[in-house]
Amino acid sequence: MYNFFMQRVMLVIEYDGTNFVGWQKQRRGRSVQQEVEQAIEKVTGQAVKLVGSSRTDAKVHALGQVAHFDMDSTFPAERLKVALNDILTDEIKILSSKTVKPDFNARFDVKKKTYVYLLETCEIQSPFKRNYVANTSFSLDIEAMGNCAKLLEGEHNFKGFCSAQAQVKTFVRTIYDIRITKNKDCIKFTFTGNGFLQHMVRILVGTLVDVGRGKLSLQDVKLALENGDRSKAGKTMPPRGLYLKKIYF
Amino acid sequence: MYNFFMQRVMLVIEYDGTNFVGWQKQRRGRSVQQEVEQAIEKVTGQAVKLVGSSRTDAKVHALGQVAHFDMDSTFPAERLKVALNDILTDEIKILSSKTVKPDFNARFDVKKKTYVYLLETCEIQSPFKRNYVANTSFSLDIEAMGNCAKLLEGEHNFKGFCSAQAQVKTFVRTIYDIRITKNKDCIKFTFTGNGFLQHMVRILVGTLVDVGRGKLSLQDVKLALENGDRSKAGKTMPPRGLYLKKIYF
Repeated sequence: MYNFFMQRVMLVIEYDGTNFVGWQKQRRGRSVQQEVEQAIEKVTGQAVKLVGSSRTDAKVHALGQVAHFDMDSTFPAERLKVALNDILTDEIKILSSKTVKPDFNARFDVKKKTYVYLLETCEIQSPFKRNYVANTSFSLDIEAMGNCAKLLEGEHNFKGFCSAQAQVKTFVRTIYDIRITKNKDCIKFTFTGNGFLQHMVRILVGTLVDVGRGKLSLQDVKLALENGDRSKAGKTMPPRGLYLKKIYF
Repeated sequence: MYNFFMQRVMLVIEYDGTNFVGWQKQRRGRSVQQEVEQAIEKVTGQAVKLVGSSRTDAKVHALGQVAHFDMDSTFPAERLKVALNDILTDEIKILSSKTVKPDFNARFDVKKKTYVYLLETCEIQSPFKRNYVANTSFSLDIEAMGNCAKLLEGEHNFKGFCSAQAQVKTFVRTIYDIRITKNKDCIKFTFTGNGFLQHMVRILVGTLVDVGRGKLSLQDVKLALENGDRSKAGKTMPPRGLYLKKIYF
């Protein structure tokens, strides 16, 4: 029998990932998924399973994570935002909550994702940036990094640009756009693509940094793209500079 | 006999106060003073006593705390900056270290201090601001607050604007300047004075906020200044919005 009270709810979530083991529930440690699920249970009285758009890693932040769940209740979805924010830690904020079509899927309906990475080049990093911006002591050639970014854009096999632990059917992804802007000592990398492999954004930034400091050549990066050779790409940058900015459906 | 190796050293220190019980050593909890003293001992091999310009409270931040100590060593004071930053938590950064005259006193030679208080007026505060900006849901009349600020400037008995625990010889202080600027949803209060009593800046901001939302009148504030009546001043604002910005000697 059709359940008239069942609604699929979509949440947009902002979080400071510093003190979390990541989005996904783990055996140990605080995860964003679990804390939001527990808050939903407190409000609705129902245990739910949240499906998120992106499994952000430990210490990675989100400005617009998206998740869905099913709620067997007439509780107005729009009011969940305030109710959940009242309960949740200040490290997580629900930016919006609404009923969506029953077949909406936060994970499989994603068309594009945008990630931002923040990197400073300064001698002494401010204590206020320690969890929110990565830091390098190298001076970086922005033009060389821009040329490398052009190379990375498009459809490629990114096997050389992801964690060895990545379990996927295919390493082929399309990066629509890589933007690099500089404001004083802070460099902002913006990546938009149809999907990103585990650690891929952090390795892409590591590669751009290695090109910017002259440690890798464009030829090395071409080889990493063609041969999937992880050793020709840059190192994995720290998670604290990474932000899941926006999910497009 | 005069000790030729004794030098008085001045440090300028930036810290994120979130996880500290404050500047001053306490029986329990992490204090900035203690962590810097321990780092100095590791570098120089000597137990020292740091004298700070301001005893910032728990969760209060500093952009330019100043402290002095005596070091019986030929270790170049200028190199302490890098040596201490290597050891210290990322929550504390030594911005400069140098030898000063033997009679310099970071506490008693202070001529002026500048504090900044950051306050947002927004419905949902970003997780990234939770430890660094206070928040209020009231909309505030900036012009009314400016008029109140004019009233508070100058030499006054600030007995009505400090913690009941304040132990001082006199409650008379001079505020040279109060500046209130607004950028989008964030209001920045800048106070410069010859000294501030315990909790005074946070109570001054609480008073300005109460005037801005229409809960207190300028007449109330006049009474609080004239009679030292704590109940006529505003409440103590939370510590997280407060920054010790600069010490003038």
